[in-house]
Amino acid sequence: MKLVPLGDRVVLKQLVAEETTKSGIVLPGQSKEKPQQAEVVAVGPGGTVDGKEVTMNVAVGNQVIYSKYAGTEVSLEDEEYIIVKQSDILAIIE
Amino acid sequence: MKLVPLGDRVVLKQLVAEETTKSGIVLPGQSKEKPQQAEVVAVGPGGTVDGKEVTMNVAVGNQVIYSKYAGTEVSLEDEEYIIVKQSDILAIIE
Amino acid sequence: MKLVPLGDRVVLKQLVAEETTKSGIVLPGQSKEKPQQAEVVAVGPGGTVDGKEVTMNVAVGNQVIYSKYAGTEVSLEDEEYIIVKQSDILAIIE
Amino acid sequence: MKLVPLGDRVVLKQLVAEETTKSGIVLPGQSKEKPQQAEVVAVGPGGTVDGKEVTMNVAVGNQVIYSKYAGTEVSLEDEEYIIVKQSDILAIIE
Amino acid sequence: MKLVPLGDRVVLKQLVAEETTKSGIVLPGQSKEKPQQAEVVAVGPGGTVDGKEVTMNVAVGNQVIYSKYAGTEVSLEDEEYIIVKQSDILAIIE
Amino acid sequence: MKLVPLGDRVVLKQLVAEETTKSGIVLPGQSKEKPQQAEVVAVGPGGTVDGKEVTMNVAVGNQVIYSKYAGTEVSLEDEEYIIVKQSDILAIIE
Amino acid sequence: MKLVPLGDRVVLKQLVAEETTKSGIVLPGQSKEKPQQAEVVAVGPGGTVDGKEVTMNVAVGNQVIYSKYAGTEVSLEDEEYIIVKQSDILAIIE
Repeated sequence: MKLVPLGDRVVLKQLVAEETTKSGIVLPGQSKEKPQQAEVVAVGPGGTVDGKEVTMNVAVGNQVIYSKYAGTEVSLEDEEYIIVKQSDILAIIE
Repeated sequence: MKLVPLGDRVVLKQLVAEETTKSGIVLPGQSKEKPQQAEVVAVGPGGTVDGKEVTMNVAVGNQVIYSKYAGTEVSLEDEEYIIVKQSDILAIIE
Repeated sequence: MKLVPLGDRVVLKQLVAEETTKSGIVLPGQSKEKPQQAEVVAVGPGGTVDGKEVTMNVAVGNQVIYSKYAGTEVSLEDEEYIIVKQSDILAIIE
Repeated sequence: MKLVPLGDRVVLKQLVAEETTKSGIVLPGQSKEKPQQAEVVAVGPGGTVDGKEVTMNVAVGNQVIYSKYAGTEVSLEDEEYIIVKQSDILAIIE
Repeated sequence: MKLVPLGDRVVLKQLVAEETTKSGIVLPGQSKEKPQQAEVVAVGPGGTVDGKEVTMNVAVGNQVIYSKYAGTEVSLEDEEYIIVKQSDILAIIE
Repeated sequence: MKLVPLGDRVVLKQLVAEETTKSGIVLPGQSKEKPQQAEVVAVGPGGTVDGKEVTMNVAVGNQVIYSKYAGTEVSLEDEEYIIVKQSDILAIIE
Repeated sequence: MKLVPLGDRVVLKQLVAEETTKSGIVLPGQSKEKPQQAEVVAVGPGGTVDGKEVTMNVAVGNQVIYSKYAGTEVSLEDEEYIIVKQSDILAIIE
């Protein structure tokens, strides 16, 4: 099962950082706030959206910064995703 | 009696999951929250909507994720439907 | 006296269901909530509305679902009507 | 002195119903609520309004239903008028 | 010193009515409410305003009705003016 | 250091009136309210702004009336400026 | 790691002023309020944004004044950035 976004929508998955403590124990990063970084997992086809031509400029695998209050949280098969419009993606992290 | 949506509107029916308890009893899924998944039951013709050309990209039978606060709940012959604009459909589940 | 709607406006009349009790008495349906179903009683000419070309897709006699909070209630010769824009009509019931 | 409306504006005068009591006395109708019916007393030239071409479809003498919260009340020589945009006129009463 | 309005703006001066008491004394009209009548004292050139072509249809000396809550009050050399957009002028009084 | 405004923006400097008391002492005018008069100190290039072509109609040195609630106050090297869009300038004082 | 802004977005870094006390000690300027001055660190490609053609007029290294309430604060590798749309940049400081 996978999400196929429509129009100018992009499916994101928030990044979870692993963190190594000074004693060397690896802690999974859920407790660390990373509110706006995410990885692109699916990209809509673009085209005419609300009467305007949209070209998609992000690609699957891109790490991106997205607008904090944008998007809809969706859970599918126990995974959490965020679906945003491409215009809510502010920058790609390279 | 059936609903024939106008313009860029789409008639959805929320998915109800059946759930089998560990003892094997099948429980109908009404108590399980699945707020944003629905199946497409009718699709409007698209065309010029609010002065903009809209092409319909969903089809009857598609399972979709739609925007939580969008749409109008409608009941017809004891069935509950949600009528949304296609732009409120975020993604198709494949 | 009749209402001739302008532009993309449509005059609706809410449907009143008759209901037969188990004892066979017919009760007029005013007490039964049917908030969004109505019959089209007059259709505007469409044309250029707010700078956009509108084609009318509903016809007198259609039973329709309209958006709950849309429209203006009007009373004329002791009859109650609702005047909506065609875009507030979500679907035709067939 | 008369009001010459600009653009897509229309000058209305609310209708006042005369009412005959059972004893035959004619009461002028000011106390009777008729909030949305009015007669057209002047019609603007239409043309380009806010960048959009507007054709005027009402004429002086038309009795119309207008949107309850629209328009500006104006008094001129002790007469009360309402100036609305044509798009606030919902229907003509014929 | 004079005000030269830009774009589709119009400079208005509120009309002050003189009122003659029964004893024949002329009272200047400041205490009489005339909130929406004004005389045009300067008219902008029109042209492209906010991407739309605007033609000016009022002239210096016109007495007009303007929208009550529109405009900016400006005082210049102890005179009070109101600067409105032409679209806030509802009608010319002839 | 100087401010070079972008697009349809204009840099203004509020006018400070000098006032001579009856005894002949010149008081700098900071205490006198002149909220909407300002002098143009820099003018953006205009061009396409938000998809619309804007021609600049004010020039450095113009004294202007601007909209009271418009603009952003900016301080640079202990001088206070207001940056407004040209459309917030209502009139030139000549 | 660097931020590559999309569309008409610009990545800014707020300016921190150094301040020398009278006794000659240099104090880093974090305590000094400079809310609206920033340096451009990355510029999006422009192009069609929300159906409108946008040309980028700022360049990396420009010192700019930006609109106080605009933009999204982003932190990347312990550096704080602000991502704004170019239209939120009011002026370049030269």
